[in-house]
Amino acid sequence: MLKRVAMAIGDAGGIGPELAARVLADANANAGDLIVFGDRRLLDHDARHAVVHLDLPTVAPSALADLPATGSVVVDLANLDPKDAPVGASSAAGGRAALENFAAALLTADAGAADCVFFTPFNKHAMRLARPSYVDEIGFIDATISASESGREFNVLDEVWNARVTSHVPLKDVADLLSEERIYQSIRLTAQVMEGAGYVRPRIGVAAFNPHAGDGRNFGDEDDDVILPAVLRAQEEQLAVTGPVPADTVFVRATRGEFDAVLTMFHDQGQIAMKLIGFDRGVTLIANYPFPIVTPAHGSAYDIAGLGRADTGATFNAIGLGRKLMALQPRQPDPDKLAALPGRIEEHLKERAVA
Amino acid sequence: MLKRVAMAIGDAGGIGPELAARVLADANANAGDLIVFGDRRLLDHDARHAVVHLDLPTVAPSALADLPATGSVVVDLANLDPKDAPVGASSAAGGRAALENFAAALLTADAGAADCVFFTPFNKHAMRLARPSYVDEIGFIDATISASESGREFNVLDEVWNARVTSHVPLKDVADLLSEERIYQSIRLTAQVMEGAGYVRPRIGVAAFNPHAGDGRNFGDEDDDVILPAVLRAQEEQLAVTGPVPADTVFVRATRGEFDAVLTMFHDQGQIAMKLIGFDRGVTLIANYPFPIVTPAHGSAYDIAGLGRADTGATFNAIGLGRKLMALQPRQPDPDKLAALPGRIEEHLKERAVA
Repeated sequence: MLKRVAMAIGDAGGIGPELAARVLADANANAGDLIVFGDRRLLDHDARHAVVHLDLPTVAPSALADLPATGSVVVDLANLDPKDAPVGASSAAGGRAALENFAAALLTADAGAADCVFFTPFNKHAMRLARPSYVDEIGFIDATISASESGREFNVLDEVWNARVTSHVPLKDVADLLSEERIYQSIRLTAQVMEGAGYVRPRIGVAAFNPHAGDGRNFGDEDDDVILPAVLRAQEEQLAVTGPVPADTVFVRATRGEFDAVLTMFHDQGQIAMKLIGFDRGVTLIANYPFPIVTPAHGSAYDIAGLGRADTGATFNAIGLGRKLMALQPRQPDPDKLAALPGRIEEHLKERAVA
Repeated sequence: MLKRVAMAIGDAGGIGPELAARVLADANANAGDLIVFGDRRLLDHDARHAVVHLDLPTVAPSALADLPATGSVVVDLANLDPKDAPVGASSAAGGRAALENFAAALLTADAGAADCVFFTPFNKHAMRLARPSYVDEIGFIDATISASESGREFNVLDEVWNARVTSHVPLKDVADLLSEERIYQSIRLTAQVMEGAGYVRPRIGVAAFNPHAGDGRNFGDEDDDVILPAVLRAQEEQLAVTGPVPADTVFVRATRGEFDAVLTMFHDQGQIAMKLIGFDRGVTLIANYPFPIVTPAHGSAYDIAGLGRADTGATFNAIGLGRKLMALQPRQPDPDKLAALPGRIEEHLKERAVA
């Protein structure tokens, strides 16, 4: 049976709709396995200014349980008239539609009608205009599919993967959030997810926290007291882990082929490196859910929205990674969830009328 | 009058002596303006395994006040027999000799007999074996020349300079060390030093502290409360400053030509980027002293010491930057200090006998 990618159109103020149109128009990126969630008018509008031709059928949410054997389709949520969302700026209408598209894609994969979720860039500010309590994708996914465990973000380049122990928290809080257990679990999860992506015993470099890995406790103790014990514990379990490696050389060593992944202690420690190595190519993978969720690592790029010159590199890489992961991790449809799917998508659309 | 570079041979366990020999043997790197401080035996020994030919006169410290009009010279401190310092490892003998070479070069520049100090890589561990209280170069320079103000490190690549507000401190202490005043002064100093290097109104990107520059206070307050006010104050004084810029894009923007320098809040924030951009080319400049001090940014590379394959890229770049800076910042000899110079160098050598 055809494995399918549930694709959510991202923020309408940015390059998300254009990227979606370019994906659909590209013979490789559109492998006839896409279920696109969004407003058909927006998609056609962006196809025009991306100068691409879209020719794919629209289906109702009720058709999700029984899609044609092959061929990409659009599920028209009719949730955003292009003239209601300004191009190049965030808007509540744009943020709301993006959240609805995302929720529909997540619920579809959760029901087993798709094997992977892909989305074009969201904009946090727009999402908060629509839903002030919105923090980040992970919290939203957890709530939408009632996840038993929270997801973890990976940044993926061909050369190196990056996972992090902490992410969207104030930097001054990171030292207190680091524990041997937390770092050890992050190492394990990184190895697990990479094995799920086909790596055999992935080599993981664990970044140090302090300058010069603490320089023998001259510049801080976390490297000796917290990171090293976690690395030793993982090594005892035969994981191919090295560290703590000074943060300013760990990515240099990775790009030279020494590590498949780097585990960083905080957000920018990894992001500084990953964006320098491949700004236009990077993919974000949100793992630790029943299905992989992928998106280009770059943002919604309001500055070039509507100009028809969005770079598709990271977007195509994201879909490629999603397909690779879903091929290795088969899913089964859930009949109850499938039956409930159209109704649940409808609920998400109705919330808007209430809000 | 010829401007001169006082050159200290670095740690004998690493690639420092080899790099010194290669500098002396290279027609461009050795512009006939070098005063080399170290042990002549060590230099000749390393010239042999670097397969380079050295032909330059040895002079006594007493000759420093009256050097020949042109031509590089060696001041043989006779402070390290090559067989006393193991190659590929740190030793107290190697660390002590490196400190003596450095002190002699600093005192020579301080007296005005040289206009710049250059050193091949030191090794902190070796220096601490020789002198347990040793923290870093800056503290040593401050003490050696009784500096009225402490120095500041810059990492320099052709594409971008990097200065930092804090450096060799535990990462968990950085938030408390950041203040509007400290950041503002760092911006000013960066602009000043770069103007001294020939930049007209250098464009400085100031890195944010928290992920996504705090994301509107969702992930920390330092970006809004401390960094932004410092940037605004610098802008009021017509400095070309931008920030806080998310740390994970500020170097991407710099390498695309948007900034001449990036001011980072802590050590690795800049070092991660600089090493990825140009690991083998980076130069460290220690500024805010009466003369510039330059060295390759890489370390003593014990793993390839004695193999004759040290890369000279960063070393040649360091001397090049030193020459550029000294040409723009003329110095005057200090007759009293010049007269005292041989005695002061001798004192540093005698300390060893006492220790």
